Amino acid sequence: MTSLADLQVRSLGQPRHESPLSSYVAGRKTNEYYVSEDDRVLYDDTLSLIERRGEPVERWPSFETGGPREHIFFDPTTMHVGVVTCGGLCPGLNDVIRAVTLELYTHYGVERVTGFRNGYAGLNPDHGLAPVALTPDSVAGINERGGTILGTSRGAQDPAVVVDRLVELGIDALIVIGGDGSMHGAHVIVNEVDRRGLSIGVIGIPKTIDNDIPHIGQSFGFQTAFAEAAKSITAAHVEAQSAHNGVGLVKVMGRHAGFIACYSALANHDADFVLIPEVPFRLDGENGLLEALRRRVADDGSAVIVLAEGAGQDLLPETGRTDASGNQRLGDIASYIRSAVESDFAARGEELTLKFFEPGYGIRAVPADASDSVYCARLAQTAVHAAMAGRTDMVVGRRRHRFVHVPIPLVIERRHSVAPDGDLWLSVLESTAQPIDMA
Amino acid sequence: MTSLADLQVRSLGQPRHESPLSSYVAGRKTNEYYVSEDDRVLYDDTLSLIERRGEPVERWPSFETGGPREHIFFDPTTMHVGVVTCGGLCPGLNDVIRAVTLELYTHYGVERVTGFRNGYAGLNPDHGLAPVALTPDSVAGINERGGTILGTSRGAQDPAVVVDRLVELGIDALIVIGGDGSMHGAHVIVNEVDRRGLSIGVIGIPKTIDNDIPHIGQSFGFQTAFAEAAKSITAAHVEAQSAHNGVGLVKVMGRHAGFIACYSALANHDADFVLIPEVPFRLDGENGLLEALRRRVADDGSAVIVLAEGAGQDLLPETGRTDASGNQRLGDIASYIRSAVESDFAARGEELTLKFFEPGYGIRAVPADASDSVYCARLAQTAVHAAMAGRTDMVVGRRRHRFVHVPIPLVIERRHSVAPDGDLWLSVLESTAQPIDMA
Amino acid sequence: MTSLADLQVRSLGQPRHESPLSSYVAGRKTNEYYVSEDDRVLYDDTLSLIERRGEPVERWPSFETGGPREHIFFDPTTMHVGVVTCGGLCPGLNDVIRAVTLELYTHYGVERVTGFRNGYAGLNPDHGLAPVALTPDSVAGINERGGTILGTSRGAQDPAVVVDRLVELGIDALIVIGGDGSMHGAHVIVNEVDRRGLSIGVIGIPKTIDNDIPHIGQSFGFQTAFAEAAKSITAAHVEAQSAHNGVGLVKVMGRHAGFIACYSALANHDADFVLIPEVPFRLDGENGLLEALRRRVADDGSAVIVLAEGAGQDLLPETGRTDASGNQRLGDIASYIRSAVESDFAARGEELTLKFFEPGYGIRAVPADASDSVYCARLAQTAVHAAMAGRTDMVVGRRRHRFVHVPIPLVIERRHSVAPDGDLWLSVLESTAQPIDMA
Amino acid sequence: MTSLADLQVRSLGQPRHESPLSSYVAGRKTNEYYVSEDDRVLYDDTLSLIERRGEPVERWPSFETGGPREHIFFDPTTMHVGVVTCGGLCPGLNDVIRAVTLELYTHYGVERVTGFRNGYAGLNPDHGLAPVALTPDSVAGINERGGTILGTSRGAQDPAVVVDRLVELGIDALIVIGGDGSMHGAHVIVNEVDRRGLSIGVIGIPKTIDNDIPHIGQSFGFQTAFAEAAKSITAAHVEAQSAHNGVGLVKVMGRHAGFIACYSALANHDADFVLIPEVPFRLDGENGLLEALRRRVADDGSAVIVLAEGAGQDLLPETGRTDASGNQRLGDIASYIRSAVESDFAARGEELTLKFFEPGYGIRAVPADASDSVYCARLAQTAVHAAMAGRTDMVVGRRRHRFVHVPIPLVIERRHSVAPDGDLWLSVLESTAQPIDMA
Repeated sequence: MTSLADLQVRSLGQPRHESPLSSYVAGRKTNEYYVSEDDRVLYDDTLSLIERRGEPVERWPSFETGGPREHIFFDPTTMHVGVVTCGGLCPGLNDVIRAVTLELYTHYGVERVTGFRNGYAGLNPDHGLAPVALTPDSVAGINERGGTILGTSRGAQDPAVVVDRLVELGIDALIVIGGDGSMHGAHVIVNEVDRRGLSIGVIGIPKTIDNDIPHIGQSFGFQTAFAEAAKSITAAHVEAQSAHNGVGLVKVMGRHAGFIACYSALANHDADFVLIPEVPFRLDGENGLLEALRRRVADDGSAVIVLAEGAGQDLLPETGRTDASGNQRLGDIASYIRSAVESDFAARGEELTLKFFEPGYGIRAVPADASDSVYCARLAQTAVHAAMAGRTDMVVGRRRHRFVHVPIPLVIERRHSVAPDGDLWLSVLESTAQPIDMA
Repeated sequence: MTSLADLQVRSLGQPRHESPLSSYVAGRKTNEYYVSEDDRVLYDDTLSLIERRGEPVERWPSFETGGPREHIFFDPTTMHVGVVTCGGLCPGLNDVIRAVTLELYTHYGVERVTGFRNGYAGLNPDHGLAPVALTPDSVAGINERGGTILGTSRGAQDPAVVVDRLVELGIDALIVIGGDGSMHGAHVIVNEVDRRGLSIGVIGIPKTIDNDIPHIGQSFGFQTAFAEAAKSITAAHVEAQSAHNGVGLVKVMGRHAGFIACYSALANHDADFVLIPEVPFRLDGENGLLEALRRRVADDGSAVIVLAEGAGQDLLPETGRTDASGNQRLGDIASYIRSAVESDFAARGEELTLKFFEPGYGIRAVPADASDSVYCARLAQTAVHAAMAGRTDMVVGRRRHRFVHVPIPLVIERRHSVAPDGDLWLSVLESTAQPIDMA
Repeated sequence: MTSLADLQVRSLGQPRHESPLSSYVAGRKTNEYYVSEDDRVLYDDTLSLIERRGEPVERWPSFETGGPREHIFFDPTTMHVGVVTCGGLCPGLNDVIRAVTLELYTHYGVERVTGFRNGYAGLNPDHGLAPVALTPDSVAGINERGGTILGTSRGAQDPAVVVDRLVELGIDALIVIGGDGSMHGAHVIVNEVDRRGLSIGVIGIPKTIDNDIPHIGQSFGFQTAFAEAAKSITAAHVEAQSAHNGVGLVKVMGRHAGFIACYSALANHDADFVLIPEVPFRLDGENGLLEALRRRVADDGSAVIVLAEGAGQDLLPETGRTDASGNQRLGDIASYIRSAVESDFAARGEELTLKFFEPGYGIRAVPADASDSVYCARLAQTAVHAAMAGRTDMVVGRRRHRFVHVPIPLVIERRHSVAPDGDLWLSVLESTAQPIDMA
Repeated sequence: MTSLADLQVRSLGQPRHESPLSSYVAGRKTNEYYVSEDDRVLYDDTLSLIERRGEPVERWPSFETGGPREHIFFDPTTMHVGVVTCGGLCPGLNDVIRAVTLELYTHYGVERVTGFRNGYAGLNPDHGLAPVALTPDSVAGINERGGTILGTSRGAQDPAVVVDRLVELGIDALIVIGGDGSMHGAHVIVNEVDRRGLSIGVIGIPKTIDNDIPHIGQSFGFQTAFAEAAKSITAAHVEAQSAHNGVGLVKVMGRHAGFIACYSALANHDADFVLIPEVPFRLDGENGLLEALRRRVADDGSAVIVLAEGAGQDLLPETGRTDASGNQRLGDIASYIRSAVESDFAARGEELTLKFFEPGYGIRAVPADASDSVYCARLAQTAVHAAMAGRTDMVVGRRRHRFVHVPIPLVIERRHSVAPDGDLWLSVLESTAQPIDMA
């Protein structure tokens, strides 16, 4: 159980400056937008989940709310902000970069914004990647293109080297846009900053195409990504329906979490089976995939299977291989299922037209859709407010439509995943009408 | 302040049947998905908003959670469900119709589903609109097309005639997809049902392109709609930038609520001014629109104004006219501003290339995007669960990512609108850098 | 060289009926739209290609023009038309089916239109596929969905069985939408019809995702398909640019013809190398792909390779396998190149981030874009006019913006392909700046 | 009748340099792509249109073919090329700018490319618009955004001032992307260049959203534009079908030519009436619009009217007003028809739900689709080849799938329009089934 203390966000110190909010309005100030200290959001809001019913509500676990503070820690006229994007691509990276830059320039009057190239590598001088100045001009229109203008890479750098570089450039706050690995890296940088007694803030904006970061609700770019994946399901459905005994097999991203598979399948209501890492299944037996597929094809003439890449790994021999980040290489479940289905139909002398679809990286290299763009802009604004206020070792997130601050340790301690007994998976079961228990 | 009693949802009676959930899985049942009575969601989850701190949390206002119940009121083998779509179009109507039909057939085994044509008119025999059977076949693929296969219309019908019709056809539950007017109509039908002592449930699925229904969070189709509107803003920006002193003026829907204007403006970060009904503004004076526009065009060479149709009505003479539903006809604020801007530039001898954009109905006649499709499917599933459980006089909604039941009286008592002191409007101010106070 | 005789289109006999064109206009007729016999289109229109300069122009090879005839062969009030779609999917199939149906009903008053299911299999009673009536209602809106409502399959059926079936159902004209194999099948049916002395017309509408049918200009659905493929190239470019030494490898369709690769590469000007079956290349050597890729990555930091599936087959061992249609299975050139590139960078100790993209069937299962929809509608109208006029053993096509009739034997005698010395390939070379000679 | 002499393209003089084509291939040259003098394309290729049957084919009117020449006029190492975009926006302008720049840099090694800002105004120093350098870097990715990075404006400038400016900057060739007015302006500049005996080439790339420039086939951006317009027709159809007696009225661009109306209507086969400037119609009478609309609504329950803005001007009083370019202001035919339809239904006591759609500028501010992008790239390549070869006073175009050179005087002497007795209009009549003669 998450405690109130766990949810406490760190600050570099007491606010020392008045916020320039609304300084662009001649002769007028407003304070109605400032966040106050008791604007906290309960960790749980469902009666059956609230465990501290006896205690006063002030002691219940709650998140700090994001937004502008009346008093801020850094002096905007001298402040220097760094921005870095790490890990795999995700729709919306350029929206975030643009909105961070515009918020700093337009709203706070911060005019020293530096982008580091190719992830944490750009913070290590050995890689020879010169940082770039981010200005309203240089970020104009970048949101219309996928990817990140800063480039990206996987993997960490020596925190001592990174902090040396931050100090050398006079960076006051570093905004890290990245996944759980990158947030772990950010936390290590915070520790090094602490060790040296520096006042450099580190603010994370969580990025994950798999939507598997905990506490923050849906991650930016996720809905753009699953909308792209849904197109492959539609295509698979069209192909399957056009053939006699047509089967479409669609493999989507999702190493540990089946969110893309679930949402893309729900989007067009055309999937007959959804297979995700969180829910085991067998191929054989009365409730196994093969028998269920046979029935579905017999009834409807065709069927579509949506498969997360990390599903059914227990059915495969371990690969024993790992990638550069130390992640275990996944076994090829798609080929395994494909062969099994083909063999099964062949053994029964049934015709089969199986078409395989893999949208792959195509779902993450596109620009963010309108909703994700709004979300990116607002996350970026929240991150800038947090940075100006002197917060550190935290990420911003939108949890149940509230923008909140979450300590980094909380988001890297575990992965978010589809609850097999939750309402999302139930919706998938209702939509597909696949057997509840295929294990 | 909303009380716990206000949030109580009505039921037709005690559940009398076991839910057939998972009956499609031979020899197996599961109950982990069933909603229990203490799965209630707090009305407020922000400490500063919770007014009943002294009271036990069980007495705080909270919503009933949506989802399947272990025991249900109606017998699925005999149940007859009616579906009707009312009011203006909205992306996702066909998704909802399809998902309601599939949920009833596939999950509960209800095979009597009747669609009424052209709104409440279809429930009045005088209009001669024969109802249509909704089956898995007849709803296949309809989600790929905008509009509603059932047709729609505005306006109410005599509740006595409607209830006569429901009785005549043996309808056990009526699912009404419509806006606040239609929900008022649904409530009137409930009253007539009550008066006669009948057991007919009425479940609403709120539909509003303007996102102005309270308590339920974002309404379905809204994000598809504002994404379409955002395209006009992008076009206006492109046109304005291509000309010397180019000004783009984009008029979007929003009679009372500026949500479409705000979200579409945030989506591409290209709007310079957003004008909504909730925030008054003047044209003249130091902080008036004309002077601010002058400055922006002088600084950037061009500017884009996004205008909700209901904005600035106090600047216009009253039209005195009302439409068929009794809504007052709005004055033409777009033409008013256009003339004023043209006169202002002419008076100063400045060149001006003003282009006007009005996406109009185009934003509501498109199919739902992937996220809205998922949302529609899940709302429909929730509505069906509520209908089967014997609930009535309520709507389903997703509030802070939870599917909840809300009594109809609560959603028709007032309109939801953009809070001028809230974080959405602040994000707009940050994005546009328009003067905070133009009034 | 194609002769005038080769271009002669066959007719079932003299026209016997007046066309009902414009019969829907009370009391009014028009003949200005009728095609006359001297509306022929020259086979060649470039001076350097015209080989018969001495002869009168009337003797030069020329195509019969498509369009309505004043006098037609069949009696619309009794005529029965069959429609069948064969082979792989292609954007626009449903547009064609719809437009054929509407043209017959609305324009000629033909109300007996029958669709055969799943390709030629639907014409063989052994497959038990009941034909379906095509009516304006049943085809409403089908153009908004990919695939074919009739279903499709590969392979031929015994022509005697097919003609028996046509006779049994009283089909007067069969419209076959399919590729070169299907057109060969259509020709065989014509021969069987001839042998029996029947008056059944067979009209083809050529369908090929690869754009490889000769004489007819661009085939329907092709531009929709390459637009989809171009999205993968954009994604590959975004991925490649976001990484250090990023290489995107995109495999697109194109067994024998590189049109999809060429057009999709030209569409966004982001490809660095295009490899097609028509132009041989080597991996090694000064102008080989590996060295050229090395230079490009060194210069630009990243590169994108677009690869038609049938390219470079001479570099691979023969597979020796054939598919159901007797086509040889292609070797896996993508994996071959991928391995070679990875080995090459590894051998030189250079970092490499290679991402592979394969849009696959996704490019052919989408609905037609607006231009292809127009094209499909007009091809379908032309095919109906030809059928009504009693033409047979021919296909319709648009050649240099003229709708023409082409005898089937001409379109199945060879494949169309990218001319290595033509202006399309030159445009690709200009766009990519890849070495002209990589062989 | 166009004569051979009319089709002759002017040159600045004899070619003096060898083309650097393929210079990027070490040690290798190719000449198979070079265009030779007898690569001419016949003006007419339809037998019934060829008027000179007695004459040798060499004397028939024919176009010069576009493409690279083996010998060129300008020295690429010193050459300086100017680029300007004029008139209204059109999808693909940025594709053209990008491809011109890349072709010059990559292929010819020309590194002095200058863009003039905001149309011809940028060539008049009085407007204070500094020209910008166009480089591969500055044009990267611009094709993904609508509009023109150079800006644009309407209207001409004093040719003496323009030529002074060209001389001052040392421009050798000016590439003008614009409509018929801009091509007239280009011709006037040529005349001034001639008068001074200078060797400055002027090459046009015709741009017209209305597709109304003669001789060149479909203009770039046109298909992107009508695809956008088609979306409004789809929306109108959806709205009309969802209502009782629903009528959708869609107004699209087209002052003198109805191409957008025709093609967008054909694209989804959903329009019931298409009204264009070229074909007169009446509202009243047996075959008038009102009676025909009445019948259609009675039969189908709804109807959609697609209206080009310049249609039916004879039904309206003359406006007497002209715009800055001297074009007469069009009367508001949409409002006229709308009122007439509303009055007609009201007079008959019939319910009516009329929804008006005007996609407006939205159709021209979008990025080019994939096919238009390919077309733009190839037009730009052709224009650069012509400029290098020393051609002048000409435009490039694609006519019947051949890239050709057309003298400017030919393209400004008249407008292209929809032939009321041609096959395009016939296709529209077939698709809509509207009365052939509504006049």
